[in-house]
Amino acid sequence: MIISTIDELGKYEGQEVTVRGWVYNTRSIGKIWFLIFRDGTGLLQCVVVKAEVDSLTFDLEGTLTQESSVKVTGLVRKEPRATGGYELTVKNITVVQIADEYPISPKEHGTAFLMDNRHLWIRSKKQNAILRVRHQIIKAARDFFDNNGFTLVDSPMFTANAVEGTSNLFEVDYFDRSAYLTQSGQLYGEASAMALGKIYVFGPTFRAEKSKTRRHLTEFWMLEPEIAYCDLDENMDWAEKLVGYIVQQCIGKCKREFEVLERDLSKLEAIVPPFPRITYDEAADILKKAGADFEYGNDLGATDETIIGENFDKPVMIHRWPADVKAFYMKRDPNNNELALGVDMIAPEGFGEIIGGGQREDDYDTLVNRIQHHDLPLKPFKWYLDLRKYGSVPHSGFGLGLERVVAWITGTQHIRECIPFPRTMSRLEP
Amino acid sequence: MIISTIDELGKYEGQEVTVRGWVYNTRSIGKIWFLIFRDGTGLLQCVVVKAEVDSLTFDLEGTLTQESSVKVTGLVRKEPRATGGYELTVKNITVVQIADEYPISPKEHGTAFLMDNRHLWIRSKKQNAILRVRHQIIKAARDFFDNNGFTLVDSPMFTANAVEGTSNLFEVDYFDRSAYLTQSGQLYGEASAMALGKIYVFGPTFRAEKSKTRRHLTEFWMLEPEIAYCDLDENMDWAEKLVGYIVQQCIGKCKREFEVLERDLSKLEAIVPPFPRITYDEAADILKKAGADFEYGNDLGATDETIIGENFDKPVMIHRWPADVKAFYMKRDPNNNELALGVDMIAPEGFGEIIGGGQREDDYDTLVNRIQHHDLPLKPFKWYLDLRKYGSVPHSGFGLGLERVVAWITGTQHIRECIPFPRTMSRLEP
Repeated sequence: MIISTIDELGKYEGQEVTVRGWVYNTRSIGKIWFLIFRDGTGLLQCVVVKAEVDSLTFDLEGTLTQESSVKVTGLVRKEPRATGGYELTVKNITVVQIADEYPISPKEHGTAFLMDNRHLWIRSKKQNAILRVRHQIIKAARDFFDNNGFTLVDSPMFTANAVEGTSNLFEVDYFDRSAYLTQSGQLYGEASAMALGKIYVFGPTFRAEKSKTRRHLTEFWMLEPEIAYCDLDENMDWAEKLVGYIVQQCIGKCKREFEVLERDLSKLEAIVPPFPRITYDEAADILKKAGADFEYGNDLGATDETIIGENFDKPVMIHRWPADVKAFYMKRDPNNNELALGVDMIAPEGFGEIIGGGQREDDYDTLVNRIQHHDLPLKPFKWYLDLRKYGSVPHSGFGLGLERVVAWITGTQHIRECIPFPRTMSRLEP
Repeated sequence: MIISTIDELGKYEGQEVTVRGWVYNTRSIGKIWFLIFRDGTGLLQCVVVKAEVDSLTFDLEGTLTQESSVKVTGLVRKEPRATGGYELTVKNITVVQIADEYPISPKEHGTAFLMDNRHLWIRSKKQNAILRVRHQIIKAARDFFDNNGFTLVDSPMFTANAVEGTSNLFEVDYFDRSAYLTQSGQLYGEASAMALGKIYVFGPTFRAEKSKTRRHLTEFWMLEPEIAYCDLDENMDWAEKLVGYIVQQCIGKCKREFEVLERDLSKLEAIVPPFPRITYDEAADILKKAGADFEYGNDLGATDETIIGENFDKPVMIHRWPADVKAFYMKRDPNNNELALGVDMIAPEGFGEIIGGGQREDDYDTLVNRIQHHDLPLKPFKWYLDLRKYGSVPHSGFGLGLERVVAWITGTQHIRECIPFPRTMSRLEP
């Protein structure tokens, strides 16, 4: 007996196989009924013809409830009109369990209800597709770095200090003291780049923001490469190559998912490096011309990002920012000390910032002054400053917010649908 | 100008290249001196001959301190006696920074000192090699699942309930309530397997154990596949295939690292499926014959694991455990209700348990009874119980402790060296 998954059926055209999964739907036209079947790799139409099956199997049409678990044996037939290109002519259906009445029906449900049932909601066509694209995005990102000589470095979740205040940090009871959950692996990434050359950190990060916008989660995944002997320009090269690779891999591997999501693929097909690179000053000009409520010298707001993003059909990189809006560790532009060598990448179609990064300050004395200027204590930075004492080199890196990239690539408006089990200010369950 | 990394030099034999990195060591024999150079991809011997370089470069021998950052240009020459097989005949050395006196010298340092300087210690030959093998282990594990139709599912770090008591859990201030850091993604993995068929969770997990043994970290990474329509036997098939694949990939890709680590490769080459499978009863017999201080019915201690592990030259899987020592969600053996369909995999060479898993209880009523029997509240398990109401299927999975596998494969006795920045009861920095 051949056991197959739906996405592998093409290997078995004309053969008898068994698929194992769940009932998505059924519909009857008298002497024939159709079982729309799911197994986590896709949907499959199974055709049950009265004359070709025993009565036990045929009569199941009245018994099989949504999400009942079944094994279906049948003949694989090419069917160009079907999603995935194949259909199953059923010989036999074995019931594993008849499901209780399923709480999620095709009718409209409120978001709170769906989120309360997230453990079931992820079975539905659209949510399932988003999670499968998320998997491919992660795989593409890791493959990109692995294929380019980067070493993965897992940075710690627990950190000892809340140097910039505890307001956005989650505090943990850590035996006899407090620890704080990481907001970024960057500092550890810098230490690791000095040890390993090119590295990437990829793990959960945490932000205790009291924000309820559709762009915020308290727990999200961040991808943070860090590269020794790398300046801002090369950093931007890596950022655009990475994003281009991710998008093209998804287009190649997620055809069915994008169909389900009704994603406009032409928008994604355009995402090929090089991406436009503009300075902060040029970005400010765009906003001014668009009549945006934006003051030169400030950071960009969500609306500003949308306006700028909509000016380009590829992600746009904005570089050389007023130093005051960027972090203390950013290197200043040697041609203008007021500017930090930072870069943000803004996704098209209004999906906002997906990458933030830049070249790091590599001079010991400058960095000490910067820390003091920001009224931060030096002691917690001792080890970080060590990197500028023992073989300092120009280095750069960036952070990519995974769920924001998933939102953009899948065309999903709410970031909480872009992670399997989202955590927000008001949600810890399921 | 060709810029290369050490591990890619083979492509440029006979050509002039520039490598960028740090001084590992120097030694002089008069008119020739040797720069042992590192760039994170390996070590390279660079030969500086007085007659072939300008005096500025030649005189650097007296200036270059350990870990000074330098760019070295020279001719790539085949040299079979060198690690990696190549040497560089130097034309020019550019100094980026002369390092301060480096705190880690070749002399012996205490562990606390090295751990306090973990951000620098990871540059040393052995620690660097361990981290590079760790990278390959993670890559092999992910490739294995990706190539076998599994979907990655990231389970949440924050969980709402401490159903089995808070003693081993880290508590977090979560806005107006408490949250707890995850100890396992399994329950989420089960929900996801019902949505996606075959899934794996791979992320940090936390345990607030007041333990100071060399086997414990408060924060470690766990790899947790979960498979719908899978029984204990198939679960063991997946576990041995995974471990076999990881080991063989490392052997192929980490030759230099294993050389540095002086790892006995013959021990690893033997790690090819099938692995021995013994019942708990058979394991108990082995311990009895070995005269171990072991009482039938108990869980295995570290010493017991070592004794059993040493009886085999491959990892051994122990299955069918007394139900009382296993978790409430394990399915019972249909042939003997006292036994749980659990499996532990014990590594050879005394490295202890690397995998724990089993088949899950899939019957709603049985699971409800089991939860009540353990005096656990039902409410937090409502969503988990839902999985047994809506299309329950036989399913299995396991958890692989990443750092333990790194310890075994690299032959490292202390697990704290198997993660870039370890967290223990007494260590939160760097």
